[in-house]
Amino acid sequence: MTAQQREMIDQILRNSPFDLGGDVAAQRPLLDQMLTSQPLSADVRTTRADLGGIPVIFIDIAGIEPRGTLFHIHGGGFALGSAESSVGLASSLARKTDMRAVSVDYRLAPEHPYPAALHDVTVAYRALVEESGSADHVVVSGESAGGNLAVELLIAESAEARKMPAAAVLLSPMTDLTVTGESYAGKANVDPAISAEAIRTRAADYLAGTDPGDPLVSPVFADLSGLPPLLIQAGSHEVLLNDATRLAEKAAADDVAVILDITPGVPHVFQAFAGLLDEAEAALDRVARFVKDNTPQKAAA
Amino acid sequence: MTAQQREMIDQILRNSPFDLGGDVAAQRPLLDQMLTSQPLSADVRTTRADLGGIPVIFIDIAGIEPRGTLFHIHGGGFALGSAESSVGLASSLARKTDMRAVSVDYRLAPEHPYPAALHDVTVAYRALVEESGSADHVVVSGESAGGNLAVELLIAESAEARKMPAAAVLLSPMTDLTVTGESYAGKANVDPAISAEAIRTRAADYLAGTDPGDPLVSPVFADLSGLPPLLIQAGSHEVLLNDATRLAEKAAADDVAVILDITPGVPHVFQAFAGLLDEAEAALDRVARFVKDNTPQKAAA
Repeated sequence: MTAQQREMIDQILRNSPFDLGGDVAAQRPLLDQMLTSQPLSADVRTTRADLGGIPVIFIDIAGIEPRGTLFHIHGGGFALGSAESSVGLASSLARKTDMRAVSVDYRLAPEHPYPAALHDVTVAYRALVEESGSADHVVVSGESAGGNLAVELLIAESAEARKMPAAAVLLSPMTDLTVTGESYAGKANVDPAISAEAIRTRAADYLAGTDPGDPLVSPVFADLSGLPPLLIQAGSHEVLLNDATRLAEKAAADDVAVILDITPGVPHVFQAFAGLLDEAEAALDRVARFVKDNTPQKAAA
Repeated sequence: MTAQQREMIDQILRNSPFDLGGDVAAQRPLLDQMLTSQPLSADVRTTRADLGGIPVIFIDIAGIEPRGTLFHIHGGGFALGSAESSVGLASSLARKTDMRAVSVDYRLAPEHPYPAALHDVTVAYRALVEESGSADHVVVSGESAGGNLAVELLIAESAEARKMPAAAVLLSPMTDLTVTGESYAGKANVDPAISAEAIRTRAADYLAGTDPGDPLVSPVFADLSGLPPLLIQAGSHEVLLNDATRLAEKAAADDVAVILDITPGVPHVFQAFAGLLDEAEAALDRVARFVKDNTPQKAAA
């Protein structure tokens, strides 16, 4: 069954007109369309709001008493995607983890290069912690470029000795804008969606002249000491595989609690295919355990 | 609490007369004494037996209906340790995972260099699978040099298209006998027990002239395709940290399901300190989930 599922997902992605490295005006609606093609479950409630002036979407699952809030940062190479396009994935994460989620609409490149996105994410996170009164029940999550922003957010909070979230969940994070991971070559043939060229295009949009080796844009080069527990998931069929493995290796070297969790034969952010792919459900189950292990159960009212 | 526990373990190891790189005749009893200093729980039953002529100890936990058998390969740099010295750790694994365990007495270097240990482990594993009628409820586990032998066993079974175990659990595995991991330098000051020099001494005993870059002695250089799901745990305070992270990276590249699970601030095979160290209990809980995720529940009788 699951081999057939993996083959189907692979074909969907190979046949998609979406091109991560393409013209942003053309690609933005294509990515939104792809990510929102599955209807949301009937139990998902979304509420537009803002956090510190940054537009966000709160995502609540009917019938769940949330144990905290998942602060979710969408992907799309810093240039595509939106809070809304990731509601499906964020709602899957919220349901599995018994959390409320909030999906953040940070400003996109190339119109708004670094540090605009990181600024927006940081402002929104701090406003959420302020509103919550504590970061103990906040978990940060991010997919792809959102995984980059998630780690950079943690680094910023650590540097300023601010309140750290309980943990962070990074799905196929993009961690090295010098685009040097071995898997760019090693996984080029099996990645159905992403190429080194596409990543280089999007990285250039975001960097707009910033050194790609700067630890503030490439967390794989950062000092990660003091970060909360990290769960890093990736598929083995992605050119960004080594962005995940190298971040884990750096975190381990820097004495951070880190779990690297690789699912074979699946593509970039495969968790977005929950419902179509057994591996996605299983990976989300492991996210749920990690989140529950790292967030204290709230006292019963 | 746990910072105090970590400090205590660190001091125990720093003050121990045991030296992994020392003379084997002197060090063997010291390691056995250290590993057996904690009495076994009253619920542990041990039975000496053999599997295919290789001496083993079966370990049963009273009151547990085992869901399968954990085939455990002890550590000690290929030259020290014994089936008996690892009964404590194997019994912790058995209790947490609801498994029966069997600890294997393979022949030790320098008296018996490569491939004696791998031969013994392979013979015993095959006899266990034969007796069990299936490998579906067998999980292989190994600590340190035993983690090396565990991966090499899987590679051997894969190469001969034999029955693979359901999964493997590798605790601080020693995966590169060329002794080149960055953590040999990076973690030298924080590792309370092991040095690159000690590993080089024990590797030389085991190799007895075999090329340390041979994938049959250094699984980090092997083709790992076809291996069952791997859980690799290590502490961030060990010079062997990169032996763990690099094995995970290689497994991911080779499309193996792999979870790398790093606990900060703890030493080599810290799981042996269960009862004294909260992180050890938590890590064993994650082993238990991994084993249960990967072994089908036996049908009720």
